[in-house]
Amino acid sequence: MKQLLIAAHGSRRTSSNDELKLLGANVSANLGVAFDGVEVAFLEFASPSIESVLVGFFNGGTTKVVVLPYFLSAGHHVMNDIPREINKVLDQWPDKKIKLLPHFGALHEMAIVIAEACKNDNF
Amino acid sequence: MKQLLIAAHGSRRTSSNDELKLLGANVSANLGVAFDGVEVAFLEFASPSIESVLVGFFNGGTTKVVVLPYFLSAGHHVMNDIPREINKVLDQWPDKKIKLLPHFGALHEMAIVIAEACKNDNF
Repeated sequence: MKQLLIAAHGSRRTSSNDELKLLGANVSANLGVAFDGVEVAFLEFASPSIESVLVGFFNGGTTKVVVLPYFLSAGHHVMNDIPREINKVLDQWPDKKIKLLPHFGALHEMAIVIAEACKNDNF
Repeated sequence: MKQLLIAAHGSRRTSSNDELKLLGANVSANLGVAFDGVEVAFLEFASPSIESVLVGFFNGGTTKVVVLPYFLSAGHHVMNDIPREINKVLDQWPDKKIKLLPHFGALHEMAIVIAEACKNDNF
């Protein structure tokens, strides 16, 4: 079993966290059969935590998790906090595998998405 | 003349701001003839400021600017700070037009980009 975890910062505003949950559902709808499921987890201000989602995956029989940091740039959260959360769980589950993807903003498709969105605007 | 302004938060880390400038260049390469140019500007911690880029555009003869807030969620910066910067400039240039797009994270393509990036990963 392989799961996708979208790791976001989390916000004090519920609407912002809800936006992320909707994104998770939309990603899931576009993923097809490549993954068994998608969950969104938060570093701060919102639940579930990254640790709790990973533990839930592993307790449910998942063997591999791909983690996508939903951040625009590679700051402290991406470089330190998310790896620390992952390593904390892997220490307890040494036979499981977690792959940490580059942060969202590093995807080369970003420039294309922005260009297309702006080109299609008829202002 | 129509220009695109990518309005980012700005970081204390130069590498992060440089990442944004590279994104601006990549967007420009994908925009074709729909815009006369693309600039990146920052709210905090980095230059150029949003105001200075807008003023530069208008002094150069630009009549219309599309502003894309490069933010993942609609927090205070998106809802208050960027509109305030824009209105400050429009007060001085009442004959110019600025269109403020929804923030980057609201683009519906986000879910598709994430799903494709993860599907193509062979972990």
